[in-house]
Amino acid sequence: MKKASLFDECLFMDAGFGKVLIHDSPYMKVLSFGFKAGQSLPLHAHDLEGQVSIVVLSGQGEFLAKDSTIPAKAGDLLIADIAEPHGVRAISDMCVLVTIAPPI
Amino acid sequence: MKKASLFDECLFMDAGFGKVLIHDSPYMKVLSFGFKAGQSLPLHAHDLEGQVSIVVLSGQGEFLAKDSTIPAKAGDLLIADIAEPHGVRAISDMCVLVTIAPPI
Repeated sequence: MKKASLFDECLFMDAGFGKVLIHDSPYMKVLSFGFKAGQSLPLHAHDLEGQVSIVVLSGQGEFLAKDSTIPAKAGDLLIADIAEPHGVRAISDMCVLVTIAPPI
Repeated sequence: MKKASLFDECLFMDAGFGKVLIHDSPYMKVLSFGFKAGQSLPLHAHDLEGQVSIVVLSGQGEFLAKDSTIPAKAGDLLIADIAEPHGVRAISDMCVLVTIAPPI
């Protein structure tokens, strides 16, 4: 059993988004991302089985999909296959929780 | 690809906590729980492989563990084996996101 305070683990950096590994097990990988306004995790995909969930904990921006962008604010969740193109772009500073199962 | 607005899916009921199934796949099950102040998901465990992550989206309360309670506020995450006793008790109204992998 493990507790994390995700706002403490939300790392903002000038050079690019901050990424903190919160948890890794045979069942799931959990990461915290901090995006400063304007930063992004570009659209990408992995040719692997599994899904990713992306939860906005604070701030606002957009989820990136293959042919669209989807508004993303605190409390919004996106679930995508890992093999589907997905990404995040921050409009304001954002803290984002990513869960990948099975872990990659 | 699927988007949900978790605060819209946070269901408060007088009769007991609200539970909304957000997503179910071979990879993960995602549920939204709404607890009114004083409500709880009692300590429980399942004799199964896998892990559960519990994220507080709003409000405050406690994570319940076998021999302890752990303060829980917005942005706090608890990860437990499904086979480990775990639960949640709300002090104020709480919206909580639960992810189970693999799904049970």
